[in-house]
Amino acid sequence: MRQNYKLIVEYDGTHFHGWQKQRSERTVQGVLEAAIHTMTGESGRVTGSGRTDAGVHARAQTANFHSASGIPPAAFLRGLNSLLPDDVVIHRCEAVAADFHARYDARCKHYRYCILNRDLPAAVGRQYAWHVRRPLSLADMRAAAAVLVGTHDFKTFEGAGSPRASTVRRVLRAEFETRRHGYLYFEIEANGFLRYMVRNIVGTLVDVGLQKTDPAGMTTILNARDRRCAGATAPGHGLFLMSVAYGSSV
Amino acid sequence: MRQNYKLIVEYDGTHFHGWQKQRSERTVQGVLEAAIHTMTGESGRVTGSGRTDAGVHARAQTANFHSASGIPPAAFLRGLNSLLPDDVVIHRCEAVAADFHARYDARCKHYRYCILNRDLPAAVGRQYAWHVRRPLSLADMRAAAAVLVGTHDFKTFEGAGSPRASTVRRVLRAEFETRRHGYLYFEIEANGFLRYMVRNIVGTLVDVGLQKTDPAGMTTILNARDRRCAGATAPGHGLFLMSVAYGSSV
Repeated sequence: MRQNYKLIVEYDGTHFHGWQKQRSERTVQGVLEAAIHTMTGESGRVTGSGRTDAGVHARAQTANFHSASGIPPAAFLRGLNSLLPDDVVIHRCEAVAADFHARYDARCKHYRYCILNRDLPAAVGRQYAWHVRRPLSLADMRAAAAVLVGTHDFKTFEGAGSPRASTVRRVLRAEFETRRHGYLYFEIEANGFLRYMVRNIVGTLVDVGLQKTDPAGMTTILNARDRRCAGATAPGHGLFLMSVAYGSSV
Repeated sequence: MRQNYKLIVEYDGTHFHGWQKQRSERTVQGVLEAAIHTMTGESGRVTGSGRTDAGVHARAQTANFHSASGIPPAAFLRGLNSLLPDDVVIHRCEAVAADFHARYDARCKHYRYCILNRDLPAAVGRQYAWHVRRPLSLADMRAAAAVLVGTHDFKTFEGAGSPRASTVRRVLRAEFETRRHGYLYFEIEANGFLRYMVRNIVGTLVDVGLQKTDPAGMTTILNARDRRCAGATAPGHGLFLMSVAYGSSV
């Protein structure tokens, strides 16, 4: 009998060309499918809650896969962790209903974008934050971020070449938190994200923080529904997929 | 005129074979001396407060070097940071008295050893903590660590092949602090450290935490002045040189 398994996966994106399997590049989906193949002999697909781009990290990406192996979830957890490279760790494996789909059933995702805002870069942890040297106005960035909360058409922040039928998303939280030593965490939660949406938002908010863009201009940028109005795409290595929420049935 | 410069240096030890210059290996001292040579044409020596071993990190290693270049400290700071690889960052450069010596004048050093104590390893940040899977008794480790505070002969914890004239050191602090997600920080401050001393102490404390060694046995181990009585050397990648303190004159 085929069983559907749900995985909670942490990864360090530094040495991955993103989540999605590619013929010749190292990807998270690729190493997961290879490890499952080693354990089961099966060549099934691992479905993630969404793709993450090259360099992007995940604290708790969610995925699912089907297997007829009969391997108990606890044995998959141990076995996959022993086979996977040390930049991917499975935190949980559980049996779920046959129709659970990590992508279609996702209700809400939480991303964190880490900025190091100080004159000097970091050596330790440099792979986990975007270093912005010039001082950022946190008050202006917070005012601009607040504009994003609610249901809006986020077409302005959609990466080129990846059109979606609908570009409307509901953002539940878009806040900056400060940490010691000049670190800023941008926390954003939404019922879904367009491609490059977080990184394009962060690039735009940093323009606001650098006072290249007026905070009040954020509404204009959002309403333009035009990628050319937004800032540059922030680098991938500051971005973490923190968690994915599903309905209460899963 | 020759000027003596003091540097505060952060580095990620992951890709270094330690501090001390070696003919064919990448070391922190080696890349610093190469960068200074590029700026000055001089082939001087950079003196660190002490060596750190392969894989060991530093938040604030302190070093000094002499130069007749006349380059102002602020220009060295900018110039060296622009030349150094991204796993070394100079945080401060200042002109100091001609007789300041980063090693001989060090009064106190603070090291942190990071342990991740939980069943599953981490992917993000795995290069900065030692993963100990089995549960550690924090109460026992704290009791054993308290034995170390004070002036003692630490010969038990000295690495082989590096004898010092005196193995007596004064430990001012030896404490465990807990962090979220299963992280433990062992904070130790002393007026000096023997080679491998922190890592040998941590290996011994982990034996206590695993209840292989009784906490009361720590006194016996310390008094034995015999390396064979201590635990294994903890891995280098959990260790951080946090700061070095000098007399008020510097």
